[in-house]
Amino acid sequence: MSAQPESDTLKVDGIRLSAVASGVRYTDRMDLVLIEMPKDASVVGAFTQNAFCAAPVQIARQHLLANTPRYFLINTGNANAGTGEAGLVDALRCCQSMADIARVQPDQILPFSTGVIGEPLPVEPILLGIPDAFSGLDERNWFDAATGIMTTDTQPKLASKAIKISGREVAIGGIAKGAGMIKPNMATMLAFVFTDLGIDQSDLDGLLQQSVSQSFNRITVDGDTSTNDACMLVATGQSHNYSSLEAAERATFQRALTDVFRELAMAIIKDAEGGTKFVTVRVENGLDEQECLAVAYTIAESPLVKTAMYAADPNWGRILAAVGRAGVRDFDLSALTIYLGDVCLVVAGELAPDYTEARGQAQMDEDEISIRVDLGRGSHAETVWTSDLSLDYVRINADYRT
Amino acid sequence: MSAQPESDTLKVDGIRLSAVASGVRYTDRMDLVLIEMPKDASVVGAFTQNAFCAAPVQIARQHLLANTPRYFLINTGNANAGTGEAGLVDALRCCQSMADIARVQPDQILPFSTGVIGEPLPVEPILLGIPDAFSGLDERNWFDAATGIMTTDTQPKLASKAIKISGREVAIGGIAKGAGMIKPNMATMLAFVFTDLGIDQSDLDGLLQQSVSQSFNRITVDGDTSTNDACMLVATGQSHNYSSLEAAERATFQRALTDVFRELAMAIIKDAEGGTKFVTVRVENGLDEQECLAVAYTIAESPLVKTAMYAADPNWGRILAAVGRAGVRDFDLSALTIYLGDVCLVVAGELAPDYTEARGQAQMDEDEISIRVDLGRGSHAETVWTSDLSLDYVRINADYRT
Repeated sequence: MSAQPESDTLKVDGIRLSAVASGVRYTDRMDLVLIEMPKDASVVGAFTQNAFCAAPVQIARQHLLANTPRYFLINTGNANAGTGEAGLVDALRCCQSMADIARVQPDQILPFSTGVIGEPLPVEPILLGIPDAFSGLDERNWFDAATGIMTTDTQPKLASKAIKISGREVAIGGIAKGAGMIKPNMATMLAFVFTDLGIDQSDLDGLLQQSVSQSFNRITVDGDTSTNDACMLVATGQSHNYSSLEAAERATFQRALTDVFRELAMAIIKDAEGGTKFVTVRVENGLDEQECLAVAYTIAESPLVKTAMYAADPNWGRILAAVGRAGVRDFDLSALTIYLGDVCLVVAGELAPDYTEARGQAQMDEDEISIRVDLGRGSHAETVWTSDLSLDYVRINADYRT
Repeated sequence: MSAQPESDTLKVDGIRLSAVASGVRYTDRMDLVLIEMPKDASVVGAFTQNAFCAAPVQIARQHLLANTPRYFLINTGNANAGTGEAGLVDALRCCQSMADIARVQPDQILPFSTGVIGEPLPVEPILLGIPDAFSGLDERNWFDAATGIMTTDTQPKLASKAIKISGREVAIGGIAKGAGMIKPNMATMLAFVFTDLGIDQSDLDGLLQQSVSQSFNRITVDGDTSTNDACMLVATGQSHNYSSLEAAERATFQRALTDVFRELAMAIIKDAEGGTKFVTVRVENGLDEQECLAVAYTIAESPLVKTAMYAADPNWGRILAAVGRAGVRDFDLSALTIYLGDVCLVVAGELAPDYTEARGQAQMDEDEISIRVDLGRGSHAETVWTSDLSLDYVRINADYRT
């Protein structure tokens, strides 16, 4: 990702951002991010499906239903999750303080938190940081905002795209964070994406769900779903306003939105904790989505496949064993083909006749590895993206709290 | 496990064993094990549920249906999996050779293989090793047999138990291997358990299934199911013969059998690849088996929980997040309690008021860690056993083929 160049040109009319170091967990690290939206913006969100959704997620959902959001208030260092009633009170105190300064209603603030689970939110540093965050709002602060929401990320993640709709330029731009506890149905990840197009709430929600299903909901690092994940999409309506888009325009916008979501999702995988490989798993010609995803995730989450990737070992037996335990019903192995990059590994459930270890090794030596499974029994296809399982993944997660 | 003392006394009337170094993959390492059963023995088995079951598994299943087994022929170093028609031919050649020497039918030989997937079985070393294995058969060779079936295991695994049925002594004894690719529905594991009681085939099968469901099908190291797993149970009928056991006797035998299976299953977890902790996950008061197992396995297979165990970090937020994503329907968090050992972590979805980091740390510092989740919504309970995720797990699996 070339984050800096993008952030120089990134601008979405109506959006202002800021990031400050409030000292939630670490000193001298930007950890409090504020994003301002114009008052007529449409705002939609997709939230974690973990039963223990964190206090800020609960509040953000309620506020989104109750009023028109004007600010996203995001802290890192502490997830305010597993904190019960006290956590809700803490999140609401932050909203109240922000609302007082900005002269809006408290339910026009959507709070987001990411970091360690199960410890009380340090509210005081956040309250002290809010005035600086408010006075620092600027339409150019995308890079700082992307940096301020990082936790174990090593790179800020930004993506943007300009498209034309009815001859006029429309911007889509966003930021995301996430590196571990990444799993579909929202990962330990936050994403905030904005467009200056005006789209009504319900239409925007359809666009969000469609693009999320092809991006953030198709990545996995370790199969863990966090308590705090959210992807927010905001349409400011500062370039043009539509009550609803025509079909062709809608398709153009949907494609561009998916591109931005995917670029952010790929950036998360490329920054996966300890990751040394970027792995694409595509399952083709399955009966349906469920079957394709089951096979794809069984491969993508197998510790044995992931350690083989880390070792750059073309241990195709592990891929085959993962496919075999994915629960495909009435599996006809004679129709199955598996490719590593463009090298055919398995035909009809057996090692391909022209496969050689040298050909497999050449694929595994690449930084980006592609596994393609052709089930040969239907016409559905799905793609998921993952990383390898390295010594550093264990080191990072064994050391995270110490 | 105190393997050596057990092997000194372990004896099941009618069973003879041997182990030789045939050079399948390594030189000077016992890799070919032969086990002889008397001709009237009842033999039952539970096999891998992986769709790619290996050639020997396919042959063993067929032979078990077709004839009365007389020999188990087990090689390590090569799994003869993903080897297609050639793999079946190779396995049958080994059976034929064994049958010729022992003067039985080829379908009275059940072949088992474990080791690297996807490479042709080196048949010649096995054929050359069979005569020595046959001439070496002895009723005392349990330790050698347990050693000969090891792959990445660091310890041979034996277990035995003597019980009294109708006042007469009955022996149950067995061996197992397995350290990685361990997952319910048979892991990368082989287990061979024997009793000198005589029990008919169908009754024995019921006993096997019941004991497997409470032992080998409740352990997980890395969530991967191998292509080669099998658990065989043999009743030689050399102590007493029953067409069917009375209810009380049957219960006594079932308990003892489950004890032996569990001891072997625990030995596998204690020898888990790179494992430094033995972790018991018990889920109580769920609605049904499926729900309890879903929660238990989500915890037991979470890389984040497992790395926290490795770090001896009482990172209870990761346990809570795993419970939350296990897919429990209509989850009432106010009824939920989570314990680490005897320390209450979570009450009603929040950190327990009397929990302290020091109390959690004391539990995590133990070699054996217990996680207990009380769902508070039913009366079913399930227990699974697992290990942690360590740097050595990654090292071992990144290096396995090199």
